[in-house]
Amino acid sequence: MGSEVVKAVESAEGLSLVAALDLGDSLDQLKDSGAKVVVDFTTPDSVMANLEFLINNGINVVVGTTGFDEAKLTKVKGWLAANPSVGVLIAPNFAIGAVLMMEFAEKAARYFESAEIIELHHPLKVDAPSGTASRTAELMSKARKDAGLGPQPDATTTSLDGARGSKVGDIPVHSVRARGLVAHQEVILGGLGETLTIRHDSLDRAGFMPGVILGIRNVVSHPGLTHGLDKFM
Amino acid sequence: MGSEVVKAVESAEGLSLVAALDLGDSLDQLKDSGAKVVVDFTTPDSVMANLEFLINNGINVVVGTTGFDEAKLTKVKGWLAANPSVGVLIAPNFAIGAVLMMEFAEKAARYFESAEIIELHHPLKVDAPSGTASRTAELMSKARKDAGLGPQPDATTTSLDGARGSKVGDIPVHSVRARGLVAHQEVILGGLGETLTIRHDSLDRAGFMPGVILGIRNVVSHPGLTHGLDKFM
Amino acid sequence: MGSEVVKAVESAEGLSLVAALDLGDSLDQLKDSGAKVVVDFTTPDSVMANLEFLINNGINVVVGTTGFDEAKLTKVKGWLAANPSVGVLIAPNFAIGAVLMMEFAEKAARYFESAEIIELHHPLKVDAPSGTASRTAELMSKARKDAGLGPQPDATTTSLDGARGSKVGDIPVHSVRARGLVAHQEVILGGLGETLTIRHDSLDRAGFMPGVILGIRNVVSHPGLTHGLDKFM
Amino acid sequence: MGSEVVKAVESAEGLSLVAALDLGDSLDQLKDSGAKVVVDFTTPDSVMANLEFLINNGINVVVGTTGFDEAKLTKVKGWLAANPSVGVLIAPNFAIGAVLMMEFAEKAARYFESAEIIELHHPLKVDAPSGTASRTAELMSKARKDAGLGPQPDATTTSLDGARGSKVGDIPVHSVRARGLVAHQEVILGGLGETLTIRHDSLDRAGFMPGVILGIRNVVSHPGLTHGLDKFM
Repeated sequence: MGSEVVKAVESAEGLSLVAALDLGDSLDQLKDSGAKVVVDFTTPDSVMANLEFLINNGINVVVGTTGFDEAKLTKVKGWLAANPSVGVLIAPNFAIGAVLMMEFAEKAARYFESAEIIELHHPLKVDAPSGTASRTAELMSKARKDAGLGPQPDATTTSLDGARGSKVGDIPVHSVRARGLVAHQEVILGGLGETLTIRHDSLDRAGFMPGVILGIRNVVSHPGLTHGLDKFM
Repeated sequence: MGSEVVKAVESAEGLSLVAALDLGDSLDQLKDSGAKVVVDFTTPDSVMANLEFLINNGINVVVGTTGFDEAKLTKVKGWLAANPSVGVLIAPNFAIGAVLMMEFAEKAARYFESAEIIELHHPLKVDAPSGTASRTAELMSKARKDAGLGPQPDATTTSLDGARGSKVGDIPVHSVRARGLVAHQEVILGGLGETLTIRHDSLDRAGFMPGVILGIRNVVSHPGLTHGLDKFM
Repeated sequence: MGSEVVKAVESAEGLSLVAALDLGDSLDQLKDSGAKVVVDFTTPDSVMANLEFLINNGINVVVGTTGFDEAKLTKVKGWLAANPSVGVLIAPNFAIGAVLMMEFAEKAARYFESAEIIELHHPLKVDAPSGTASRTAELMSKARKDAGLGPQPDATTTSLDGARGSKVGDIPVHSVRARGLVAHQEVILGGLGETLTIRHDSLDRAGFMPGVILGIRNVVSHPGLTHGLDKFM
Repeated sequence: MGSEVVKAVESAEGLSLVAALDLGDSLDQLKDSGAKVVVDFTTPDSVMANLEFLINNGINVVVGTTGFDEAKLTKVKGWLAANPSVGVLIAPNFAIGAVLMMEFAEKAARYFESAEIIELHHPLKVDAPSGTASRTAELMSKARKDAGLGPQPDATTTSLDGARGSKVGDIPVHSVRARGLVAHQEVILGGLGETLTIRHDSLDRAGFMPGVILGIRNVVSHPGLTHGLDKFM
C-alpha cells in the first residue's frame, strides 16, 4: 500500500510528497520534512506510537491501519484533546464505492421488509464474513430497529445447516470464496413487488487511492477525530 | 392501479377508505365522503380538472398520473397559492426502490469518472430509454457537472452504430427489451480499481403501493406542491 | 398449474385439448377422450394411481408432480415394461432456462477450481436450499469428482456459523429469502483470473409452459421412462 | 503474455519448458531444443512465418496470435497437408470461461424468443463491440435461424439513437466502457416468464493460462488444424 500512496500523492494536483518512511525509519524525519499530513498504513502494533508522536508534533494524520477498538480510540481522543488544532481521520475502508455502498445500504434499510448481504472474495481470505459485510449489516440492523421494523419474513422450516447464512444483527450474511474473485459485496433489499441491489466490486488496491487523497485534502480542515471517510463525502 | 390502491389503503394501519371513484363518477362524492387525501391515478386528460376541484375543496392529493410539464405544474401552484393549507404530491415513480436508486445514483455520480445506465424491460414497451432511465441520467449529468467532472474516458475509435448506447446528458443509456423481463434498471459507476452498481427490479405493480401509502401519510403535513416521493424519504 | 396447461395446449400449434380433469373426476374420461398424452400436475399422493391407469391404457404421460424416489420410479418402470409402446416423462423442472442452467453448470463444473450456488426465493418458501439448487449441486459435485478435481480452495479459519453456506456434495449453497423475489438461482464458477456465472430468473409459472409443450411433443416418440426434460433438448 | 506462458508451463504437471524465444531470436533454437509444442503469442505480421517453419519441422503449435482470416487459414491448411502428423490449434480466446459462455449461448439461443448481449470493458478499448461479443452474436444468430425462430419481439416505436444497441445478426449488442472494469460479457436470453443469463468476468491475463495448457496437452493428439479451444473441451 505504501508505494501506491506515494504514486497517488505524487500525481495529485496541489499535493507534494515530502517524505516516505518504511518500517524502522525514525519518525523525526517527518517533523523535519515539514509534512502537513501523514498517511499511516502500518500495523495495529505500531500505529498507536505513530499517532501519539504525530499528534503531539501538530501533524494531521490519515489512518488506514486496522484494529481500532474503543480503548484505542479513547487514547487517540485524549492526545487530540491536548492538541486541538490537529485532525485525524481513521477509516476502515478507503474505497469510495464501498463507503457509498454502506451509506446507501443504511439509508435504504428502513424502507424494506427484507435485507440480506452476499460478500464474495478470493479463496485466500481467512475470515468470513468480511469486515465490510459485518459493518454494513450492523448499520442496517440498527436502521431497521430505529425505523421500528419487525423481524424479517422467512417461512423456512426445513433447511440444511448454514443454508440461510450467518446472522449479523438481524441480517443474514452469506460468504462466497472462489478463485478468480477479488473483493465484492452485494446488498439485497426486498419489498412488495420490488428489490433494490447495491453492489461494490473492488478489483485493485489502486481503488483505495482516490479515498486516501480525499482524506488528505479534508483532514487539515477537520480538527479532532473523524471516524469513517463518509464524514468527508 | 385503482384496485391496488383500494387494497393497499384498506390494509394500511391508521388509514380508512371512504370513497372509490371510477371514470365518470361525480367528484362531489369525495367532498361528501370526508376524504382527507385523494389518490389520483387517472389520465393526463382528466387529472387537471380533478386537481382544481380537490384543491379548491381543501382536499390533499397524491398524484401518480403522468404527463406533468412546467405549464401544468404552474397551474397547480396557482390553485395551491389560493388554498395554502392543501398539500399535493406529484410523483413520477412510487416504487420506493426506484426513488432510492435515483437518489443514490445522483449522489454517487460526483465521485466516479465513468457512469452508464442499462435499463431492461418487457418487449411490449414502446419507448427507449425508459422515463426513469432518462430522469436518472439527467440527475447524474447535472451532478457530474456541478462537481466539475470532465467528459467520461472512452477510447473507442471503431464502433458499430448504436454499440455505445444513447446519450442523455453525458451518460450513455442502453435499453434491453426481452420476453421474460418486467422493469429493471442498473446504474454502473466506475472509478480507479472499483465499480459501484445500483440495480432496481420491479416485478409487480404491488411494488408501488408502499410508496403511495408513504405519500398519503406525509402529504397532509406538507402543504403546497411536493414534486417527487424522495422529498418524503 | 392446471389452467396454465389448458391455455398452453390450446394455443400450441398442432395440439388440441380433448379433456381437462380436476380432483375427483373419473380417469375413464381420459380413455374416452382419445387423449394421446396426459399432463399430470397433481400431488405425490395421487400421481401413482394416475400413472398406473394411464400406462395400462396406452396413454403417454408428462409428469410435473414432485416426490419421485427410487421406489416410485421402479414401479413406473415395471408398468412401462408391460406396456412397451408408452412413453412417460417425469421432470423436476419444466422451465427451459432452469434445465439449461443445470446442464451448463454440470458441463462447466469440471473446468473450474471453485464452484458455489446462490439461490434466491420469496420468503414463503419452506425449504432451504431449493430442490433445484440441491440437484444442481449434486450434478456439479459428481462432475468435479469424475474430472479428478480436488477439494475447493478455501483458507477460511475464522467464521460465523453459516457464513460459508450449506454443503451439498462439495458445493457450498447459499439461500436468500426476501420479499419481492420470485425464484432465482446463480451458479458461480471460478478459476485463475476469471469467473463464469449462470443465472436463471423465473418470474411466472407461465415460464413452465414451453417446457410442458416440448415434453408433450417429444414423449410420444420416446417410449419408456424419460427422467428430466434435458433428454429432449 | 510470454512470461505468463513460461510460468504456466513450468508449473504444469508433466510439461517442461525447453525454450523461450523473444522477438528477433532465431527459430532454429526451437528445432534444437526438441520442443514438441510451441506456443505462439506474437503478432499478425510474424505468426505466418513462424507457422510455416514449425509445421515443416514437425512441431505442433498452439496459437494465440489474432488476425486469422480465410486466406491465412487456407495457407496453414496447405502446410499441414504436407505434414499430416502435425497439429495446430488456433484459438481466438483461451479463457475457458469465455469459450464455455460462447458454447452455452449458442446452445441456449434456439430455445428463447429474445436474446441480447451486454459487453463491458475498460475505457482504453478502441473497438465496440468486442470481438468476443461479435463472435457470440454471430453464433447465436445462426442458431436462431437454424431453429426457425422469427424476429425478436420489440414494440419500440420511439427511441433515442443508439438506445437499442448495435445489431450483429439479429442480436442487439450493447457496449459499456467504464474505469474500473476489465473485460466482462453478459448474454441475456428471455422467454415467457423466465430469463437465463450467462456472464463471464475476466480480471487477469493469468486467466488465459489454463486454456493454453489445455491446448498444449491436446494439440499433440489432434493432427491437422483445430480452430477454437472448444473443440478440445
